[in-house]
Amino acid sequence: MRIGLLQLNPVVCDFEGNARGIVQACMEASRQGADICVTPELAVIGYPARDLLLREDILEKCMHSVEHIARETYGAGPLLVGSPWSFQGQRGQVFNSACLVSKGRVKKVFCKVLLPEYDVFDEKRYFCAAEAPGVFEFKGKVIGVSICEDAWNDEDFWDSTRDGNDPMQELARQGAEIIINMSASPFGLGKHRIRQAMMGSLALKHKVFFMFCNQVGGFDDLVFPGRSMVIAPDGGVVGRGREFERDVLVMDISSPARKDIPEPDFEAPAEAWQALVLGTRDYVRKSGFSRALLGLSGGIDSALTAAVAAAALGPEKVTGVLMPSPHSSPGSIDDSMQLAENLGIKTLTLPISSLMQGFDQALKDVFAGMQPGVTEENIQSRIRGTLLMALSNKWGDMLLNTGNKSELAVGYCTIYGDMAGSLAVLADVPKTLVYDLARWLNTRGGSIIPEGIIKKQPSAELRPNQKDLDSLPEYDILDEILRLYVEKRASLEEICARGYERDVVQKVMDLVNKSEFKRYQAPPGIKISDVAFGPGRRMPLAARCLI
Amino acid sequence: MRIGLLQLNPVVCDFEGNARGIVQACMEASRQGADICVTPELAVIGYPARDLLLREDILEKCMHSVEHIARETYGAGPLLVGSPWSFQGQRGQVFNSACLVSKGRVKKVFCKVLLPEYDVFDEKRYFCAAEAPGVFEFKGKVIGVSICEDAWNDEDFWDSTRDGNDPMQELARQGAEIIINMSASPFGLGKHRIRQAMMGSLALKHKVFFMFCNQVGGFDDLVFPGRSMVIAPDGGVVGRGREFERDVLVMDISSPARKDIPEPDFEAPAEAWQALVLGTRDYVRKSGFSRALLGLSGGIDSALTAAVAAAALGPEKVTGVLMPSPHSSPGSIDDSMQLAENLGIKTLTLPISSLMQGFDQALKDVFAGMQPGVTEENIQSRIRGTLLMALSNKWGDMLLNTGNKSELAVGYCTIYGDMAGSLAVLADVPKTLVYDLARWLNTRGGSIIPEGIIKKQPSAELRPNQKDLDSLPEYDILDEILRLYVEKRASLEEICARGYERDVVQKVMDLVNKSEFKRYQAPPGIKISDVAFGPGRRMPLAARCLI
Repeated sequence: MRIGLLQLNPVVCDFEGNARGIVQACMEASRQGADICVTPELAVIGYPARDLLLREDILEKCMHSVEHIARETYGAGPLLVGSPWSFQGQRGQVFNSACLVSKGRVKKVFCKVLLPEYDVFDEKRYFCAAEAPGVFEFKGKVIGVSICEDAWNDEDFWDSTRDGNDPMQELARQGAEIIINMSASPFGLGKHRIRQAMMGSLALKHKVFFMFCNQVGGFDDLVFPGRSMVIAPDGGVVGRGREFERDVLVMDISSPARKDIPEPDFEAPAEAWQALVLGTRDYVRKSGFSRALLGLSGGIDSALTAAVAAAALGPEKVTGVLMPSPHSSPGSIDDSMQLAENLGIKTLTLPISSLMQGFDQALKDVFAGMQPGVTEENIQSRIRGTLLMALSNKWGDMLLNTGNKSELAVGYCTIYGDMAGSLAVLADVPKTLVYDLARWLNTRGGSIIPEGIIKKQPSAELRPNQKDLDSLPEYDILDEILRLYVEKRASLEEICARGYERDVVQKVMDLVNKSEFKRYQAPPGIKISDVAFGPGRRMPLAARCLI
Repeated sequence: MRIGLLQLNPVVCDFEGNARGIVQACMEASRQGADICVTPELAVIGYPARDLLLREDILEKCMHSVEHIARETYGAGPLLVGSPWSFQGQRGQVFNSACLVSKGRVKKVFCKVLLPEYDVFDEKRYFCAAEAPGVFEFKGKVIGVSICEDAWNDEDFWDSTRDGNDPMQELARQGAEIIINMSASPFGLGKHRIRQAMMGSLALKHKVFFMFCNQVGGFDDLVFPGRSMVIAPDGGVVGRGREFERDVLVMDISSPARKDIPEPDFEAPAEAWQALVLGTRDYVRKSGFSRALLGLSGGIDSALTAAVAAAALGPEKVTGVLMPSPHSSPGSIDDSMQLAENLGIKTLTLPISSLMQGFDQALKDVFAGMQPGVTEENIQSRIRGTLLMALSNKWGDMLLNTGNKSELAVGYCTIYGDMAGSLAVLADVPKTLVYDLARWLNTRGGSIIPEGIIKKQPSAELRPNQKDLDSLPEYDILDEILRLYVEKRASLEEICARGYERDVVQKVMDLVNKSEFKRYQAPPGIKISDVAFGPGRRMPLAARCLI
């Protein structure tokens, strides 16, 4: 039997385009001999559609789309389509479903049992949980159907499970010989290594072929890596979908053979780079834009963001804007021009000194007798934000934000200033990984990011001789404290027990807590870690521990 | 038997302050003869604490706080304290609980059965659901314990229920004569009328005394109205907690009598006003601020925001900033000065013409040959945002945002410009209600908002002779279409069926969809409707229906 995994990149709520993509991929797989095909989770609408799923007209469109796809794939074999589904007579009860369509009709609907509620997931907001998964017979084989989270609760693999129910166990009990898992499983650094081990262990434990069909593409803050897999009952991977791009993978499970796609590269910079490029490309494209602009400060964050943007959109679609002030070092300008030349992107220079003087003048009387300080630094940053937004408004280019996760965590950034932008490309990339990415990029593609940018001391250049290290610990220390506090939710005591100085840890924690209000208004970022700032981390604002 | 309802206003995560508040209120009730007391839901940490509940050290602090409160109230009668709770041997399983403490010890723990997952609620992200509620015996009476949502699922009262389980029915089955409901039930316009009818119907149906103890205060986007109630088995309200302020309500259920607090005023402006004032006061105070500033444009939104701020913080703590441009009408300035005088707030005038010229100059070459338009309007708005933030930074005053819900819905606002601020006071107040509130305020308190402000045609005054009506339908039409689309999630067809023109409805829907990216970066607002922009409305950004 040949099974086709349709690893697709839908656009949320583009019913027509998504249906066309499913039908085309199904026909393509059929031509390659697929007897039966499967789409990713909720493929008719795209994942996550969030509160659009609360609208009845949208749910009806989803179900109509499934029926349309059933008719359009009449000539192909059966197809499992991911869609929300509500059964007649149970109005209001909506399930996250896999609809088995065949010969133009919806034959059977399988529903998701385990609905994730952690991190970025809110599935119980939208769906009812099925009591059990189901199987169907096809060409003499019993095929079990599971949806994403259903496969992530095996008590033998995990130290602790989230639910008492294990749908995989139940499918095995029902005699499944092949288990299909239709997924929208997001990217995370190193996560695929665990995913592959876990799915291998499931295949081996239940003596089944395990077919993982994953969504691919950027969806707001989330990137889905594709990386669909076919795993044999001995636990070995016998087929792989491409990484970070659309693919149609047809596998003959009687003689699995295709091994043309190698094991993924799990080196953090290599993985992160691909996720950032795809996340940026799809966010810009799916928002209806084709070009982007960003501020080039001469620092490493904006240099890396420019490199990502050039790779994502093509260098001819990217403009770097230099906005020097009297505090900018001459090296910053030369390095930025060199970077732009290396990348092949356009540049524009807009000095801000006279605008700074304008604000000084406007506020002279009000601020008379007060020392200049953070206020004036923020004004510089907001002048730049205003100029960048003016260019974005006039040209129709999307403004990309260049801040990194470490700065965003400790609030070392100006709201409405350098926090402006439609997408914060590096918002989940800690400063140490920014350096690793820059060095990796240069090793891989020649000297793209000038050495002067990599070697110079990090500085916001908002006052003379300012350096990040004046007010922050070294970035390797800062990033590890942040990882423990923000991602691992460790306590002060637990972090100090790792050997960090108590006053340093306390200061970092205070900075994180004091800047929640800024992050509330931050642009969406591309999630690559276990816990990113954004929809997967929900914090109170006016709270004691935040003061 | 006398039961004390402790209607408290905690600060999220202020364990010491919250415990002190509970102990003091308990002792106060005890002195008034209370035999047993009850706090609001999760009172030791405050509701909602959001992802702080995922931290183990925070959960330990909650449980220690309950034990501390038990010791400190040794001399009083039993007390039901709201707190997260995890039982030994069930690590990782945390319940939303009512802990019965007595004589210095935790005697019994009751757990919430129904965990809401709609609107702003994410309780399944944090808590496990109990299988059933429980009762205890005290002074010969059987007392049933329920927590908030547990009371909101009666199939006789609601057309449809969210869950098959009705904890109220179960408590009645267990013989409850008194049902306690510890709550954190947020304010919504007109919601208390339903709440009271629903609780009255429960008391009558199960022939019980129903004791509703609600949290009070502003918590980020949410306002809790207090309005605790004691309802007799005949369904009648026999005791009320105060509205929008802390209260300790001690009721003798053998001879219920206290009727000194009248039926709430359900007129929308009266309710909305109280919610906005409390929400603003608590957001500012709990964020560690005491003073606020805002831009005064001469329009009705900033006028009403100034009035709310003056009522919330005291007029001496509020500064209105006038930032006239060449497009500002002279009336705007006079009206703003008159408003400030009426309210007793300070003013400051910072003309922006020369800053506008500065940006024109800086962008002259880049924009050569292009027509001025929205870009230049946005620059004006962002100059004002930058000036207001500079004052906020220098003075330590919180910047209040003055935008209304109608503008925010259709994107008639400038990101990083007039969308700047720490709290958007009117973000959930449609323009028609802004007018109603202004008129109500003048009726109630003399002529506070100058007639010139109420009567003038709404205008952003960003270009000569600009009027909102140039690009938007009349506000009464706009607001009703928005209510149907955003709050009721109605389809185009359903809205047109109400008699609105299709092209107007389509245009409004398009404007809403196109401006999701702006609202993603909007400040928190004070929720007063069924669906506010913010944590209770989660939309995709890079999606087809948003283009």
